[in-house]
Amino acid sequence: MFFHKQELQFKSTPDKPDAVYARKLQEVLGGQYGEISVAMQYAFQGWNMHLPGKYRDLVFGIGAEEFGHVEMLATMIAQLLEKAPLGITEDAVQSDPTVAAIIGGMDVQHAIVAGAGARPVDSNGNPWQGSYITSSGNLLADFTANANAEMQGRVQAARLYHMTDDSGVRDLLSFLLARDTMHQNQWLRAIEELKEEGMEKLPVPSNFPQKKEFTEVSYQYLNFSNGKHASEGSWASGPTPDGNGEFTYHDGPTTTAPMPPPTRPDARYYGTTDLPNTMEKIAGSVQDKLRRE
Amino acid sequence: MFFHKQELQFKSTPDKPDAVYARKLQEVLGGQYGEISVAMQYAFQGWNMHLPGKYRDLVFGIGAEEFGHVEMLATMIAQLLEKAPLGITEDAVQSDPTVAAIIGGMDVQHAIVAGAGARPVDSNGNPWQGSYITSSGNLLADFTANANAEMQGRVQAARLYHMTDDSGVRDLLSFLLARDTMHQNQWLRAIEELKEEGMEKLPVPSNFPQKKEFTEVSYQYLNFSNGKHASEGSWASGPTPDGNGEFTYHDGPTTTAPMPPPTRPDARYYGTTDLPNTMEKIAGSVQDKLRRE
Amino acid sequence: MFFHKQELQFKSTPDKPDAVYARKLQEVLGGQYGEISVAMQYAFQGWNMHLPGKYRDLVFGIGAEEFGHVEMLATMIAQLLEKAPLGITEDAVQSDPTVAAIIGGMDVQHAIVAGAGARPVDSNGNPWQGSYITSSGNLLADFTANANAEMQGRVQAARLYHMTDDSGVRDLLSFLLARDTMHQNQWLRAIEELKEEGMEKLPVPSNFPQKKEFTEVSYQYLNFSNGKHASEGSWASGPTPDGNGEFTYHDGPTTTAPMPPPTRPDARYYGTTDLPNTMEKIAGSVQDKLRRE
Amino acid sequence: MFFHKQELQFKSTPDKPDAVYARKLQEVLGGQYGEISVAMQYAFQGWNMHLPGKYRDLVFGIGAEEFGHVEMLATMIAQLLEKAPLGITEDAVQSDPTVAAIIGGMDVQHAIVAGAGARPVDSNGNPWQGSYITSSGNLLADFTANANAEMQGRVQAARLYHMTDDSGVRDLLSFLLARDTMHQNQWLRAIEELKEEGMEKLPVPSNFPQKKEFTEVSYQYLNFSNGKHASEGSWASGPTPDGNGEFTYHDGPTTTAPMPPPTRPDARYYGTTDLPNTMEKIAGSVQDKLRRE
Amino acid sequence: MFFHKQELQFKSTPDKPDAVYARKLQEVLGGQYGEISVAMQYAFQGWNMHLPGKYRDLVFGIGAEEFGHVEMLATMIAQLLEKAPLGITEDAVQSDPTVAAIIGGMDVQHAIVAGAGARPVDSNGNPWQGSYITSSGNLLADFTANANAEMQGRVQAARLYHMTDDSGVRDLLSFLLARDTMHQNQWLRAIEELKEEGMEKLPVPSNFPQKKEFTEVSYQYLNFSNGKHASEGSWASGPTPDGNGEFTYHDGPTTTAPMPPPTRPDARYYGTTDLPNTMEKIAGSVQDKLRRE
Amino acid sequence: MFFHKQELQFKSTPDKPDAVYARKLQEVLGGQYGEISVAMQYAFQGWNMHLPGKYRDLVFGIGAEEFGHVEMLATMIAQLLEKAPLGITEDAVQSDPTVAAIIGGMDVQHAIVAGAGARPVDSNGNPWQGSYITSSGNLLADFTANANAEMQGRVQAARLYHMTDDSGVRDLLSFLLARDTMHQNQWLRAIEELKEEGMEKLPVPSNFPQKKEFTEVSYQYLNFSNGKHASEGSWASGPTPDGNGEFTYHDGPTTTAPMPPPTRPDARYYGTTDLPNTMEKIAGSVQDKLRRE
Repeated sequence: MFFHKQELQFKSTPDKPDAVYARKLQEVLGGQYGEISVAMQYAFQGWNMHLPGKYRDLVFGIGAEEFGHVEMLATMIAQLLEKAPLGITEDAVQSDPTVAAIIGGMDVQHAIVAGAGARPVDSNGNPWQGSYITSSGNLLADFTANANAEMQGRVQAARLYHMTDDSGVRDLLSFLLARDTMHQNQWLRAIEELKEEGMEKLPVPSNFPQKKEFTEVSYQYLNFSNGKHASEGSWASGPTPDGNGEFTYHDGPTTTAPMPPPTRPDARYYGTTDLPNTMEKIAGSVQDKLRRE
Repeated sequence: MFFHKQELQFKSTPDKPDAVYARKLQEVLGGQYGEISVAMQYAFQGWNMHLPGKYRDLVFGIGAEEFGHVEMLATMIAQLLEKAPLGITEDAVQSDPTVAAIIGGMDVQHAIVAGAGARPVDSNGNPWQGSYITSSGNLLADFTANANAEMQGRVQAARLYHMTDDSGVRDLLSFLLARDTMHQNQWLRAIEELKEEGMEKLPVPSNFPQKKEFTEVSYQYLNFSNGKHASEGSWASGPTPDGNGEFTYHDGPTTTAPMPPPTRPDARYYGTTDLPNTMEKIAGSVQDKLRRE
Repeated sequence: MFFHKQELQFKSTPDKPDAVYARKLQEVLGGQYGEISVAMQYAFQGWNMHLPGKYRDLVFGIGAEEFGHVEMLATMIAQLLEKAPLGITEDAVQSDPTVAAIIGGMDVQHAIVAGAGARPVDSNGNPWQGSYITSSGNLLADFTANANAEMQGRVQAARLYHMTDDSGVRDLLSFLLARDTMHQNQWLRAIEELKEEGMEKLPVPSNFPQKKEFTEVSYQYLNFSNGKHASEGSWASGPTPDGNGEFTYHDGPTTTAPMPPPTRPDARYYGTTDLPNTMEKIAGSVQDKLRRE
Repeated sequence: MFFHKQELQFKSTPDKPDAVYARKLQEVLGGQYGEISVAMQYAFQGWNMHLPGKYRDLVFGIGAEEFGHVEMLATMIAQLLEKAPLGITEDAVQSDPTVAAIIGGMDVQHAIVAGAGARPVDSNGNPWQGSYITSSGNLLADFTANANAEMQGRVQAARLYHMTDDSGVRDLLSFLLARDTMHQNQWLRAIEELKEEGMEKLPVPSNFPQKKEFTEVSYQYLNFSNGKHASEGSWASGPTPDGNGEFTYHDGPTTTAPMPPPTRPDARYYGTTDLPNTMEKIAGSVQDKLRRE
Repeated sequence: MFFHKQELQFKSTPDKPDAVYARKLQEVLGGQYGEISVAMQYAFQGWNMHLPGKYRDLVFGIGAEEFGHVEMLATMIAQLLEKAPLGITEDAVQSDPTVAAIIGGMDVQHAIVAGAGARPVDSNGNPWQGSYITSSGNLLADFTANANAEMQGRVQAARLYHMTDDSGVRDLLSFLLARDTMHQNQWLRAIEELKEEGMEKLPVPSNFPQKKEFTEVSYQYLNFSNGKHASEGSWASGPTPDGNGEFTYHDGPTTTAPMPPPTRPDARYYGTTDLPNTMEKIAGSVQDKLRRE
Repeated sequence: MFFHKQELQFKSTPDKPDAVYARKLQEVLGGQYGEISVAMQYAFQGWNMHLPGKYRDLVFGIGAEEFGHVEMLATMIAQLLEKAPLGITEDAVQSDPTVAAIIGGMDVQHAIVAGAGARPVDSNGNPWQGSYITSSGNLLADFTANANAEMQGRVQAARLYHMTDDSGVRDLLSFLLARDTMHQNQWLRAIEELKEEGMEKLPVPSNFPQKKEFTEVSYQYLNFSNGKHASEGSWASGPTPDGNGEFTYHDGPTTTAPMPPPTRPDARYYGTTDLPNTMEKIAGSVQDKLRRE
């Protein structure tokens, strides 16, 4: 169950309205790596988890915080939109470049659809979607997804910080940046703990039977481009992070196979084949098949 | 530039057709973590990269390989569909449970739209989309995204391995599993190399000025759920992976702020407010505004 | 802020696993009218609201409950999937129609992507999306949207009730049906209260200046189909619900206007016009324009 | 069948082109609550209806009118785009703020894709989609959906009215606002008629057997937020609109249940569990299972 | 304006219900090349057209017919669903393979969402979307799009014909196949007429000034794969269809250019560059910039 | 397999950055008819093809070139974004209309998400999606789709040419325009070759048995709009392009059928019918059914 409290985790009030910035801030609310994504991702990981205890408490404990971050951003966006222009005509645009710039830069659905309110969309107006989240049940994979989400989110928050000089907005971003710092650290630490406890190992999934893997190519760097510098990296020689092998470097593939011949599905799919030609000679069974049906 | 060679990196031929499995295999071709995703992700990372040399050669070198993996899977799927049923009627279903099961389990667009061919969709028929990929320009974040993609992809390939006993399909999966092993190891190694070389550090982005972050909460675990076990993890005490702090554990938020008052946008947005009531007394300017317009 | 409690509002455990039903239940979790939709809809209405007090408390109070309903359904789905088949091969299908039916009827991404877990998608695997929700700021309109959402949701829950005889699933549905009963009643009551208090009236928005509306057609039923029976309804004569007019019935439009002539945009859009012909005679300025550029 | 007549229901010609406004007007053509949505919604309700007569004639009669509204808006948009700028370069932008504002504010696909023509998208360029419409077969639910659609649409048209002073555009909007007034009234009246005739009652669906509902909570207001004012509303005490009960107010849930234990699906899903640890001691059957396969 | 008549263009009644086939038929109703697509495509081409007369009358004349085809298919689908199973439980599945196959093969949203009604989706349940249609304003391009749509649609209808032996369904498909025959012929004829009248020529758009095109490569076949047989086609030598050139064949590109150096955007985007290293030496301006801000 | 070479097919460097134009150029990279679409479309046509030789070599040979075009555009876009503004505040907007115009006109995700890099989206920020491509297996249909794609793409490139005066961008577009000229010609020539060789004929698919088609209407122009000029076209009389018939012109439909009666599905779908009324008289079995369950 979730309980709502009509307080925010941090002050979320801009110095002054700014409809253009409101649009930009939608990215960290409803974008691929916005707060809705992490809130839903951690919640689904909790609901799908296969063991009780500290890992499940961890995803639940943070997931609920992230729903509160969605709220802080939505509240901020509504305030940034409070003076959003509405009765603008082309004449106004012609005489006032600032107004024109606001019309051009704002999310027009903020005005037309939401009446100066926040929306569950990204900064280009694409609706948030369930395909942004990751919950596979394998915690080493999923916590890596989480670490990435927090990294991408913090990069975006940092960029947004430099796109405004509103001290109210910057205060909120400085708080979110700090929480992203925490959450990056925490997922990276949890990944280590999973490995230390022997719950999961590299490569993911580690208990897939190695003999079923085509191990000849498990540690080969195969260069399918013509740049030579990748051979200089530690991914091209030396021990592998999973502790099971040694990297080797190869220019191009080490295995090849001929392409299988084209498929010949049922003639009633009406795909193009060279059978029609052949069939004229053999008074073909395909036409018969069609004729009979 | 890309050059195509009419050979495959590995044998990709099933023992026998299986239209139901063809649908399942679409997941690792056109799903969120399928081969189209990694091919496009690495390519865009290359095109957007801000430095020449080994890291760019790395994403180009592997990206091109992944396009070839798309090809192997598409070729396999077309062959699995070669005998896909078409002329099925309800009578046939009634008398033959196997045929019924195929109709139920296959992707019907494989038949109706593609004429027994592969499609750029996932195993539920959702079209592949550009929002699956990640390319932020920050390599520590992006390589973490890449490591996650290879982990999720390998988990899915492992599950698919157990869903068939076709030795041709299993051979292809065992090859892809091996390459996923390599790519997981390589991205994890590249992440370390970025840090060793001082190119990037934790937290991402590491050169955001720390004094602009609300550092009081940068290393606090704030528990917004009522499970207590998260306090047992190494993410709740001890040094943080970024080397800059010490984790502390807190039950609930350490900061709070009152909700800002509701916004009062222009009356011509026709949002519901209590102004109409008030206005009756003050012979209101809002109605005047509407009247004048 | 949201706080999570590791308890459910109601028992959510099936008698036995049923992977096919798990897919169906996704509709009321992640479909157009599923619990994610109402949870997010009420939350955004709260964040965008323009007045404090009982209406805002109402949307917050129920919104948080709905997030808990998402949790009950996700938990139920994970349990329904607990024995989801995985190692199925075509041979198994042939000999066991029940297994075949499960493969055919289940959401294959439940297995391949989520590892026997719930997903933020509908019963056809379409990801939940932000465009499902409604938050316009006009409470009479939005509460009508809410009433509709609860009605559609209750119809779907009722249908799902008849699709299983698992008493654990039915218990959960009987609880959700009861809450939908409450929420329908409550939104309908809140609509009346808005009108009684003079906050909003019909038609929505009621304070749009009536003289700016083309009132001649404001209460005309215009029949654009050839069925005559619509004239028998109380929407074709008598007083209108907004109290401002009388319905009248008309066969077809009461106003018409000629189509405006085709547009003639800049020739450099390369749209097809009859200008090229004309221009050969007048040694046209359009080609000149292109030539100069 | 549908027959087209090359006339419009109302004059649809702007005073002068305005590419920025053309983009905004797309919302009521191809947005969630635009004319395509209502046209398709009413048509599908007609095709899916389970009874002949006045209700079916009603949805057909209005649905066809709405297709004509799509046409009026598309025609208007094409004319607003007639002088859409095309040959703009950065120099022009620098010297002419008005031109810059147009570039910034217009839908660039209007120019690049449609060659100064209308498109089936909303004001942010999101394509119209089938998931916007509602047709459940239950007319009390569906007519409530219709009333909501007309309300949201009229709110948007009213906002758009204030965003232009072009008298041609305002004339068209004043006509559409009047028709929305009619359609709101009519759906609300039809809802009453359904109830008066005993076709449907509240709650929807009313013929679901009440004894199968968990009636203890059917009329309880459960407050999951900490605002107290919702208790003041008539949804917290007094008779319910469906006539079957009395509202009661409760702070928080009146029922709770423990969370079920985590699920333990097949080990070959490779989800993280604590089994690996246990298994080291018991020389586990899971590894055996994998080994045998 | 559109007027609806409660008659169909052709008989649309199945011999008997078939919920599995109802799902398949959704493809030609709401798929990429279904009837909604052609109806909307021709309508938008009419609204966006830049010349009056026969071409505009043509797209309007056929567009309206296609809306009627949507209706015939929706009507058919509703009837095919009339006996759609609903009260199925796992026991029923186990004992009756036919029922199991129906559950597996049908669109579950037909039951849960639409209550045994048609939906604006394709055969995999993907909602129809506005991005399926094409209306560029250039009629030679758009009529080619139309010819393709009718071809793809007829291929799908032909495949669907073989997937049923219901004579009622087959009758409807035989009618739609005939109309697709007509419409293919007509668009191909209209393309010729456009060229005969000098309205448009090849290549599209033909009035783009040829001197602005890099004509060296305008008629070169450049082979980027290693198959040699494409050189045998008439697209590799001989005159070109546009009458302006001669095809030539080349193995690989005839032009190349070095890749431009990586971009170096503002440091505050936090992309990874080698500047940090350099900067340690030069006490860098980037850090200064950040520090000052 | 695909091999990447770190060279471009043509110079792709702008004279100077232009973030607004970068957004526009996304259309031909990631839009419906952008380079990703043709690259993927030709690749899937190759993988799904049912015959070896020149046609398959053709789609592979060009498909690989198109992936290189994606690369040229992505590289160009990254350079156009190199000086994309980031630290803009509202004050800057007010004093500098050019900066304001850039903010308004650029794709804000270019900055926030990609850090001044290209993205797999169109010019409105809609992600590229798999549903843009066509691969049916019928080559006459698919090559028509290809001809259309090259036509639409060339129209867009021509429009984009006029939207900039940057000579570097124009050079790249002049190259792409030339390749589109080639590819249009080649697909049109390949269509003729298919017909000359007897591989495929009109109408598509030509080997569907003609006696199964309702041939009475196969060559009838049926005018469902009231414009009379379509009768003047060569699609209304004279021989048909497929050589099998003669066009005839008809005002309206030549066939009609009554609408089938409304469907009556299972009462447990809770659709509205007139049964409830009837049932009161006959003490109805439907309620019984519900009661028993």
